Amino acid sequence: MPPIYRRVCVIGCGLIGSSVLRAARAAGAAETYVAYDRSAEVRARVSELGLAEVADTAEDAARGADLVVIASPPAAIGALAGQIASALSSGATLTDVGSAKQAVLEAFEAVAPEGVFAIPGHPVAGTEQSGPDAGFAELFANRWTILCPLPRKDAPYLEAVERLSAFWTAMGSVVELMEARHHDLVLAVTSHLPHLIAYNIVGTAADLEEVTESEVMKFSAGGFRDFTRIAASDPVMWRDVFLLNKDAVLEILARFTEDLQALSRAIRWGEGDKLEALFTRTRAIRKGIVAAGQESAEPNFGRNRKS
Amino acid sequence: MPPIYRRVCVIGCGLIGSSVLRAARAAGAAETYVAYDRSAEVRARVSELGLAEVADTAEDAARGADLVVIASPPAAIGALAGQIASALSSGATLTDVGSAKQAVLEAFEAVAPEGVFAIPGHPVAGTEQSGPDAGFAELFANRWTILCPLPRKDAPYLEAVERLSAFWTAMGSVVELMEARHHDLVLAVTSHLPHLIAYNIVGTAADLEEVTESEVMKFSAGGFRDFTRIAASDPVMWRDVFLLNKDAVLEILARFTEDLQALSRAIRWGEGDKLEALFTRTRAIRKGIVAAGQESAEPNFGRNRKS
Repeated sequence: MPPIYRRVCVIGCGLIGSSVLRAARAAGAAETYVAYDRSAEVRARVSELGLAEVADTAEDAARGADLVVIASPPAAIGALAGQIASALSSGATLTDVGSAKQAVLEAFEAVAPEGVFAIPGHPVAGTEQSGPDAGFAELFANRWTILCPLPRKDAPYLEAVERLSAFWTAMGSVVELMEARHHDLVLAVTSHLPHLIAYNIVGTAADLEEVTESEVMKFSAGGFRDFTRIAASDPVMWRDVFLLNKDAVLEILARFTEDLQALSRAIRWGEGDKLEALFTRTRAIRKGIVAAGQESAEPNFGRNRKS
Repeated sequence: MPPIYRRVCVIGCGLIGSSVLRAARAAGAAETYVAYDRSAEVRARVSELGLAEVADTAEDAARGADLVVIASPPAAIGALAGQIASALSSGATLTDVGSAKQAVLEAFEAVAPEGVFAIPGHPVAGTEQSGPDAGFAELFANRWTILCPLPRKDAPYLEAVERLSAFWTAMGSVVELMEARHHDLVLAVTSHLPHLIAYNIVGTAADLEEVTESEVMKFSAGGFRDFTRIAASDPVMWRDVFLLNKDAVLEILARFTEDLQALSRAIRWGEGDKLEALFTRTRAIRKGIVAAGQESAEPNFGRNRKS
């Protein structure tokens, strides 16, 4: 397969950014790679790992690249896009990997120069690890990547979307196009709320006086442990996600809380039939997920982890 | 190793009960095995699987056994104990495997005849599967089993506790003694609340109009999928757990909700520092769990699953 891009630039070299470099290299998806991270330590590590040529500034990294992937914490994406805008080549594609897409779409629309194809993106993949050493080439294998194109229908833009799709496909991902606002609502349910809940329950447990932290850890296999894994995800990234996707998260959270109050009331009044009805319904949903995973060539939902 | 009991009786042959039979057989922990389940279908299956001699009534099963393990749904434990009480041999041990222990302790105290050693118990193990075919001999390997002895200090009782501990140890479990009320609080945090939350979030997601169930399933790898697994646990068992451990569950749930309101408010007002502070703290707790698992001979917290 011939390379899809000539020169790929990755800005931000944590778990996702470094995995993009590794996966793209493994797939031969570009001819050359350049990277920038605001941390000098991370830049040095990227160089040591041989993942990419390292630039001293984001602008230098972006200059001459035909694909620029911003893989910074979500809140920095808009500012970084503004910072590199004037360095972007005409015909280049600008994308990102953040979990909240409407905010990125608006930032890209505001700053991307004419002739640059801005396409917000989101690989639905990750682990609870962070940093350039946590990345690996298989992170995106059989995982969805959602692209949220701008409302443009001109042929060069549509071709740029095709090309970016091919890049993610080459890295093993299955690509889906989605409207940015809808993406944010879907992810608020399937990812953001689960993370918020997990962070919250681990915090609640840690604050109990009657149960020690060591007891919580010891008996965590009964369900709690799964939450601690999710609640070990990158704090800065998740802070940004909740702030950037505030409206959708608060909307879903309000529904969740309402439902939880109803459950709480059913427990208090001993309404076992209501509890059983809900628990039977949720079990059926799980069966649907498992069945979907078995029947089709859909992405395997297991985690692609190193450890 | 000589058998620990002469005749082990298991009442209720679902995931846990059938696993006790399998694990005890594999360990040679008793000479003979007898079982009862209120479902004729399950009784036939237990017979087919060769797990135990099958009795026609709970009383017949209990008669002559020196260990009786009630492995029914939690709400039935008290009634079953009452039903078999007069059939229990003097010197026999009566135990159970339910997730709420104070209610069982009170029921056992009320009905166990003199000369019977009643010892509530709880193996902290399980999968989201149910039924006699879901059980397996390794379910308890390297998992905690908590025994909650009655407030008795006489030597025969303490010996009975020792003997029951040896039985669980033979099946691969690590045994811990705990006061029943404290058990219920610890498990409310580490198991009951996580299950309640998981059931709730899956229900909330299923009710959304704007996001289809197929989208939720498709993009569930971002965190949601872990919740669906937990929310696929046995509906009747979990209904019973919440009703039997109502006080502890409602207490922990109230704290959880309070904390969640504070988080919600921080998101609404853009207080990123508060979010980041919590997320950093919860990450440290996960590191503690992982470190504990690596450093010591503690039970591995991974799931012992067949599939």
